[in-house]
Amino acid sequence: MESFTFHNPTQIIFGKNQLSQLGAQMHKDGIQNCILIAGRGSIRKNGAYDQVIDSLEKAGIKYTEAWGVEANPRLALAREIIAQAKEFGAQAVLAVGGGSVLDTAKAVAAGLYLKDIWNAFIRKEMIKQALPLYTVLTLSGTGSEMNGNAVITNIDTSQKWSISSPFIYPRLSIIDPSFQSTLPFKQTANGAMDAISHILEFYFADEKPIVTLTINEALLRTITDMTDLLQKDPLDYNARANLAWSATLALNGLSGIGMKGGDWACHGIEHALSALHPEISHGEGLAAIFPAWIEYLSEKEPSRFLRWAKCIWNEESVSLAVRRFRSKLQSWGLATSLRDLSIKPDELDQILDMIMVTPTIGGVFKLNKEELRSLLMLAY
Amino acid sequence: MESFTFHNPTQIIFGKNQLSQLGAQMHKDGIQNCILIAGRGSIRKNGAYDQVIDSLEKAGIKYTEAWGVEANPRLALAREIIAQAKEFGAQAVLAVGGGSVLDTAKAVAAGLYLKDIWNAFIRKEMIKQALPLYTVLTLSGTGSEMNGNAVITNIDTSQKWSISSPFIYPRLSIIDPSFQSTLPFKQTANGAMDAISHILEFYFADEKPIVTLTINEALLRTITDMTDLLQKDPLDYNARANLAWSATLALNGLSGIGMKGGDWACHGIEHALSALHPEISHGEGLAAIFPAWIEYLSEKEPSRFLRWAKCIWNEESVSLAVRRFRSKLQSWGLATSLRDLSIKPDELDQILDMIMVTPTIGGVFKLNKEELRSLLMLAY
Repeated sequence: MESFTFHNPTQIIFGKNQLSQLGAQMHKDGIQNCILIAGRGSIRKNGAYDQVIDSLEKAGIKYTEAWGVEANPRLALAREIIAQAKEFGAQAVLAVGGGSVLDTAKAVAAGLYLKDIWNAFIRKEMIKQALPLYTVLTLSGTGSEMNGNAVITNIDTSQKWSISSPFIYPRLSIIDPSFQSTLPFKQTANGAMDAISHILEFYFADEKPIVTLTINEALLRTITDMTDLLQKDPLDYNARANLAWSATLALNGLSGIGMKGGDWACHGIEHALSALHPEISHGEGLAAIFPAWIEYLSEKEPSRFLRWAKCIWNEESVSLAVRRFRSKLQSWGLATSLRDLSIKPDELDQILDMIMVTPTIGGVFKLNKEELRSLLMLAY
Repeated sequence: MESFTFHNPTQIIFGKNQLSQLGAQMHKDGIQNCILIAGRGSIRKNGAYDQVIDSLEKAGIKYTEAWGVEANPRLALAREIIAQAKEFGAQAVLAVGGGSVLDTAKAVAAGLYLKDIWNAFIRKEMIKQALPLYTVLTLSGTGSEMNGNAVITNIDTSQKWSISSPFIYPRLSIIDPSFQSTLPFKQTANGAMDAISHILEFYFADEKPIVTLTINEALLRTITDMTDLLQKDPLDYNARANLAWSATLALNGLSGIGMKGGDWACHGIEHALSALHPEISHGEGLAAIFPAWIEYLSEKEPSRFLRWAKCIWNEESVSLAVRRFRSKLQSWGLATSLRDLSIKPDELDQILDMIMVTPTIGGVFKLNKEELRSLLMLAY
């Protein structure tokens, strides 16, 4: 087990009807105003927006609103919101939505103190401070509600890149799973696949942190089981709550404890796919890549994947486990190949070039360009 | 799944040779001096003391030392150390040792701001602030390194009682599992049983927080497996590290997430046993109680215990699972009955009176005095 530092200062308030605490919590922290960042309107339908405004107003907290964050959130909008926050004199950032909204809010919170927020993504400027960040989560999957990461897409350069900083952990995240009960199942499944992939990025890295592996198995099984239950009954609050908390734990630092880092090749590949085709959701892009990645690598190092096959799928053979994994994702209505995602064969070279900005990708299983080409063919 | 708030601000630095960071971390926080609290000398033998002093001196942090904390730490000593800390003008408390040392340090950190620290235990004064607390853990089990709880014994009144406050979470805990490699196996096993019992106090409370149950199963299995490995080879660093981190997770808030609180009857009973006989270690007292508690209650509500029997012991019958649990504890050399602990039959009435300060005990399975008597007879 590798040495590690763990420090996750985010406070979580979780459950039905907990959102009313928001304003009072911000007030207690001395916040007098904030910029509220939101997506394209779903929070007006699920009731979160009204509850947020009510709670802010009761606590006497002024706010300005910035709407329009899309899936695969864009740099240009983050820059606009930073300008709006400056003009308003925001003391805090309040994100109300899913991972894209939260990630945009993180870019805004840090961007106020930088020449240009994109500089942090391309490692030209370092994040040294940020406005306090509060979040109200309405779609589980990215884990952004309890970590210091954010992913933003620069459409001009087709780069979907990330930042990671202790300054952009939310101070408080409120998770009321009942807001997710009106989601189309496809979005629940996308979120579940995102959470599954966060665990799998670590899971094959190292066999020594046994407690982390067994916890990760607990999370993988729970996420899969809860998603199955929600496919049958989207109003199953208990399944919704267990899925939501599992997704938070999947990327709050615990799932990589004691590991030599994760692999993250599949995330790198998916980021290229959705940078090129922003209509591809992150979860679905991952569903098209991950089973193929396991299949490809298990031919080279089968022993690394046997524990997963056995513990998660109760199979002695990795290829049978991959088959069951892919079938499960298909049963949730997810695309499981690049073809399903409407990627064209003649785009593969461009995708390869977008990914291979370094000689190899993958922190654990290093793939060069030719190996990556084979993997993409297998995923096709 | 119940609503919950989770906020654990403790920073963990974990691994071999990490202790050297201590002084610099305290210096970064603006700490210029501290009171170092320790036990009866084991940290001189395992090397932790020398490394702590070296790190403090390199960072220019002044210190005074307070030694002598025993297992089942005592109020009288905590009061003495509070006086010493006041006289020294301590800016921080530094605990170097196991759970007893850490708990004493928590009492000292909070006690400096109270008329008398025991008032917090008997709920006459509320903890509203505390000195910053740093810990160096040298024996895993209590979980005190990453929570806001402390247990202290008042010998005069035979009360072993606890406090819980957000102000006494350590700011930083350093866990170097290699300091534990020189422990007698009995102490490792005591710590393991303590961690197991922290999980079991929650595990039977509620079947709805599925993710918490599956994580708790992961922890129970890992703790048991690692303890078996350490019995064969105390120098197995990887087993030591996995056991240490599992014990931390067993009581850092995660193991009770979404539950309607825990039961804590077994802890209440054990606290009476070791308040009366301070030579009984907490872990061993729990080993003598917990299997009997499961056995006793499973006759009334068998269905509550079936999941544990199946998932942890691979048994369809609870009584077979209890038998295997008890055998496992015996194989580690732990006492598994009150008789083994040298409790005399004529002490049972006194123990009953010590425990029954309320009409029933147990947050989940409420036991009245007669039921508790039957349970104690079964545990005898």
